[in-house]
Amino acid sequence: MIKKELIEQIKIKKSFLCVGLDPELSKIPKHLLDLEDPIFEFNKAIIDATKEFCVAYKPNIAFYECLGSKGWDSLQKTVEYIPENIFTIADAKRGDIGNTSAKYAETFFNTYNFDSITVSAFMGADAVLPYLEHKGKWSILLGLTSNEGAKDFQLLKSENGNYWFEDVIAKSAQWGNDENMMYVVGATRGELFTAIRKIVPNHFLLVPGVGAQGGSLEDTVKYGWNNDCGLLINSSRGIIYAGNGNDFAQKSKLAAQEVQQQMQQILLDKNWI
Amino acid sequence: MIKKELIEQIKIKKSFLCVGLDPELSKIPKHLLDLEDPIFEFNKAIIDATKEFCVAYKPNIAFYECLGSKGWDSLQKTVEYIPENIFTIADAKRGDIGNTSAKYAETFFNTYNFDSITVSAFMGADAVLPYLEHKGKWSILLGLTSNEGAKDFQLLKSENGNYWFEDVIAKSAQWGNDENMMYVVGATRGELFTAIRKIVPNHFLLVPGVGAQGGSLEDTVKYGWNNDCGLLINSSRGIIYAGNGNDFAQKSKLAAQEVQQQMQQILLDKNWI
Repeated sequence: MIKKELIEQIKIKKSFLCVGLDPELSKIPKHLLDLEDPIFEFNKAIIDATKEFCVAYKPNIAFYECLGSKGWDSLQKTVEYIPENIFTIADAKRGDIGNTSAKYAETFFNTYNFDSITVSAFMGADAVLPYLEHKGKWSILLGLTSNEGAKDFQLLKSENGNYWFEDVIAKSAQWGNDENMMYVVGATRGELFTAIRKIVPNHFLLVPGVGAQGGSLEDTVKYGWNNDCGLLINSSRGIIYAGNGNDFAQKSKLAAQEVQQQMQQILLDKNWI
Repeated sequence: MIKKELIEQIKIKKSFLCVGLDPELSKIPKHLLDLEDPIFEFNKAIIDATKEFCVAYKPNIAFYECLGSKGWDSLQKTVEYIPENIFTIADAKRGDIGNTSAKYAETFFNTYNFDSITVSAFMGADAVLPYLEHKGKWSILLGLTSNEGAKDFQLLKSENGNYWFEDVIAKSAQWGNDENMMYVVGATRGELFTAIRKIVPNHFLLVPGVGAQGGSLEDTVKYGWNNDCGLLINSSRGIIYAGNGNDFAQKSKLAAQEVQQQMQQILLDKNWI
């Protein structure tokens, strides 16, 4: 999916919501556990219930990987089940030397046909460039993450007085462009979006941390918005575990709809739709 | 495997060689492709041929993942086939927030029963601590990598005048100890081992980059050695692709033996065995 199409979908759905598909056998409704592939059945129900209200799905690969090869089969079925007009993100945070990055790109872009993958830039240009060689695909680089540990390194200052995450974004932005790269920026860092927008005014930002992690939708929009909207706001647990009885899908539908309606109001207030 | 046992194995084998198991269908001998699981058959033959000369095996997860769930089955069979007295490293370079790291730890330590996993510390303490909760298992953190891109960020200076990789190693070393943590340090950075040994004198270092990437065994030992040996030197392509005909296993045996004999001489010169 190219940038223009993504923006179009945001206008059509009146939403810039990304739903994180992080299923755990210990958390999904008990009645699904008797089925042949409970993880896929759970995802299928969540997708059916929420696809009207979101523009992206983001399976976190760890939650599939830990189930062994069976988990990868559930992942493949899930990606195939997601409608064509919805952007898919493999939340894998991979990062390795060139020949290995090329393999990871092959995995997620070819074997599993994702639109995008999250990538760590820690190892430098040659760890990222192999992903950017895939035309029509996106690399979403870790910029400033939502977790407490972001302060351990990302928020240290470099010798030129910048935060380390600013150096990472500024340098890596030269490797691609806003048609094939996005950045992960945690919603828990509202005020720092201003600094990031000075470096990458046109890139889309993938924003985790709204909801369970305490970030605010309003602050994210206040500091992170650009003319293309420029934001994909992720919610995982708040939507997929909104209920855990027989009506779990209905509950997740209501949770997704509630976020979509807040987003619709924001888009209207911005005179953007 | 605990540290004492690893040191014992180095003494017994007279080797601190780690063999990287990075099989590619396009590179393994053609006659294996007709078998049901060519990747496992290749690894099995390489393990049989080299197990006498190495103390660790390091499958690079990307090379399995790109084959989908079938690749993960080959990985599982491979790990199960490695003899008990050989240290196993999942070269996965994972790094994510706490609940996700916990899942990755579960994957590699429980589902696949590896002794260790390579981890990126970029996201800070909470990205690493869940791995350290697994007793008897090891986290091998990216310190200073062997690739060209290491200079993009790892070799930038922080405001206190340190290289960024020094800050990463110094801070992360506080999260665990030399009985549950190691560091990845590329052999292509010989002289910088001295700086690293000032910060972590007692930790084992996992050293890629000897061979295909141009690093030197002599320099690595000169600057990186400690009283416990403290080094696991990895070779992948140089050993597993030493041949590609019917005698590929024999060729890889000779390649592994050659490195082992260099190492034996080093250990003798050090009066360590």
